[in-house]
Amino acid sequence: MTPNDKKALALHKKLGGKIRIVPAQPVKNRSDLALVYTPGVAAVSNYVAKNPQEAREYTMKGRTIAIVSDGSAVLGLGNIGALGALPVMEGKAALFKTFADVDAVPIVLDTQDADEIVETIIRIAPAFGGINLEDIAAPKCFDIERRLIEALDIPVMHDDQHGTAIVVLAGLINAMKVVKKDLNKSLITVSGVGSAGVATMRLIKKFAPKVKILAVDSTGIVWRGRTDLNETKQQLINDSIIFAEGGGDLAAALVQADVFIGVSKPGVLKLAMIRKMNPDPIIFAMANPTPEIMPEEAQKAGARIVATGRSDYPNQINNSLAFPGIFRGALDNRVTKITERMKLKAAEAIAKLVRKPTVKEIVPDMFDKRVAKAVAKVIK
Amino acid sequence: MTPNDKKALALHKKLGGKIRIVPAQPVKNRSDLALVYTPGVAAVSNYVAKNPQEAREYTMKGRTIAIVSDGSAVLGLGNIGALGALPVMEGKAALFKTFADVDAVPIVLDTQDADEIVETIIRIAPAFGGINLEDIAAPKCFDIERRLIEALDIPVMHDDQHGTAIVVLAGLINAMKVVKKDLNKSLITVSGVGSAGVATMRLIKKFAPKVKILAVDSTGIVWRGRTDLNETKQQLINDSIIFAEGGGDLAAALVQADVFIGVSKPGVLKLAMIRKMNPDPIIFAMANPTPEIMPEEAQKAGARIVATGRSDYPNQINNSLAFPGIFRGALDNRVTKITERMKLKAAEAIAKLVRKPTVKEIVPDMFDKRVAKAVAKVIK
Repeated sequence: MTPNDKKALALHKKLGGKIRIVPAQPVKNRSDLALVYTPGVAAVSNYVAKNPQEAREYTMKGRTIAIVSDGSAVLGLGNIGALGALPVMEGKAALFKTFADVDAVPIVLDTQDADEIVETIIRIAPAFGGINLEDIAAPKCFDIERRLIEALDIPVMHDDQHGTAIVVLAGLINAMKVVKKDLNKSLITVSGVGSAGVATMRLIKKFAPKVKILAVDSTGIVWRGRTDLNETKQQLINDSIIFAEGGGDLAAALVQADVFIGVSKPGVLKLAMIRKMNPDPIIFAMANPTPEIMPEEAQKAGARIVATGRSDYPNQINNSLAFPGIFRGALDNRVTKITERMKLKAAEAIAKLVRKPTVKEIVPDMFDKRVAKAVAKVIK
Repeated sequence: MTPNDKKALALHKKLGGKIRIVPAQPVKNRSDLALVYTPGVAAVSNYVAKNPQEAREYTMKGRTIAIVSDGSAVLGLGNIGALGALPVMEGKAALFKTFADVDAVPIVLDTQDADEIVETIIRIAPAFGGINLEDIAAPKCFDIERRLIEALDIPVMHDDQHGTAIVVLAGLINAMKVVKKDLNKSLITVSGVGSAGVATMRLIKKFAPKVKILAVDSTGIVWRGRTDLNETKQQLINDSIIFAEGGGDLAAALVQADVFIGVSKPGVLKLAMIRKMNPDPIIFAMANPTPEIMPEEAQKAGARIVATGRSDYPNQINNSLAFPGIFRGALDNRVTKITERMKLKAAEAIAKLVRKPTVKEIVPDMFDKRVAKAVAKVIK
């Protein structure tokens, strides 16, 4: 356990939970009570019941989302269940408030069944203006998100997929500027075909339709010759998101690649592999907390730009650059679905905040107050 | 619409929801972030997953409850659905925080099916240290509460039932002192056999086993000669909670009664009925917001003590005297079930706070800070 881990445990124990639920204004006396509770609240309940389209203005629905997890894929820890997921959801709620004044309720589920997850979220949806799905394992996360988007009239986004995709694309846009390459003429090799990997590949392809993407999972390059592909991976081939005429390992997939994007496992990227990439290699090593390669190592092998998920190195690719602003914008603009177009706009908005990208600064700082505002503005 | 109603609507629109979800401590920089979120949170998630019995200390579970409604019986408004119920649940959350520092999350359900309600609450339970059921119609509320109490290891209480029962009993204990009568030698007539009525009768009978109780529903006195009784009413007879050798209307049921308890409908209690009661009639007219009889009228007919649910008359019988302290105590003392014994203790604790009960003061003031503390202390 690191010193930071020990401090984190002590802090959590001291706080006893990282969020508090407080009245929007103090209830000090009977006349306050007669307004926020009985008898005054009856008029509001009646009004909202008769004018449901105005519920957002008179209730928490207009400013509150739910962060829902089943604990099946928590950080890099795997399937640790509902209670294990709870500290992460609370942390996320704290960030939603800090970065974008979004009120967020952590909900962790005592089920990991896709049908039950969908059903439960639909049933608890009325109080919320949006649903942030979190730390739900692939491939069921794709199906769950799709079904909820169809069923609900509030935005639903699985942040592990789209938050990551948006921030990676933002960083990639700026990294390309630094090395003066064109994404549409580049080869990107993605290690990891889970929730983040799939969404990232799809969004990059949307942004630069001529980019070439090779996907590598734990068995090697994903291509049509393989008989072990799940539906999600098959779909990536069918939709021409990825290309590959034959199999091979990560090393093979990286020969003459311009960009490595890792959303996989610590240590899978070796110096020798980077040396076989095209000039000015760009390395996004985002396994958490230990990346696919440590930045010092990557640089030894000639990496020009290295980004990780860590706060102790430059170029931190962190979802916090995206999710607060996305839901802020969705609430402000009464968006019912987060579209691909909005995600592209969000990535571009984040990228644009770095006026002159450098090898050490391809994304803005997480505490840059402009970020959530810039993202919120394009979610419409 | 009353002037207070108009003010309430305006205030709700201005606030846009009555609760806010805020970080327990500010997240100001990267080192804060490394503790409340990645990478530090991973150590906490791991620890909690491996030591689930300690989740209450490290997460919101130790201080947060859910207030859950399906909107099927909201205040006196009836079945107005989930969105209509939301302002009430938010108001309740504000009171939980104000009176007892309990963090409470409003959850309103897009289903009114008992099985689905039970199932949904079980699935969202992990993040919570208690479940306050609210505004769920009788008779399904009894079944839902019973099944949840059995299924969950956190306290579950339907406040419309037990919150009301506790506060009525508290008031009744003191009212009896004022008129110098013995509950065990009294006749109580209860108008209304819904959630509040049933729980109130059961708790009073537990407190004073020899009290006589007559229950009257919209068809008249509840007795074994009737063929239209639902299971709940039948059970009241089988359990000897109520007695009656024959039928009759409310007027008949009130002849020589000592106490009238109304949890029914505005205006059902007439002056002539009070005049047929025993000397020193005690009237609890709690239909909301318009009582079974207005206090001035009741007094004209000779009522000695009148209590209502209203804040603009003396003796306000309001659940807020009970629920905040009950869940505060349950959380503090890690109670897994709210027992009948605890409810009796809570009623006695509330009653005791009025040192010298009078006709105008049978319960403490809702803003009396001692109340929640005194109640919390006995929930163990």
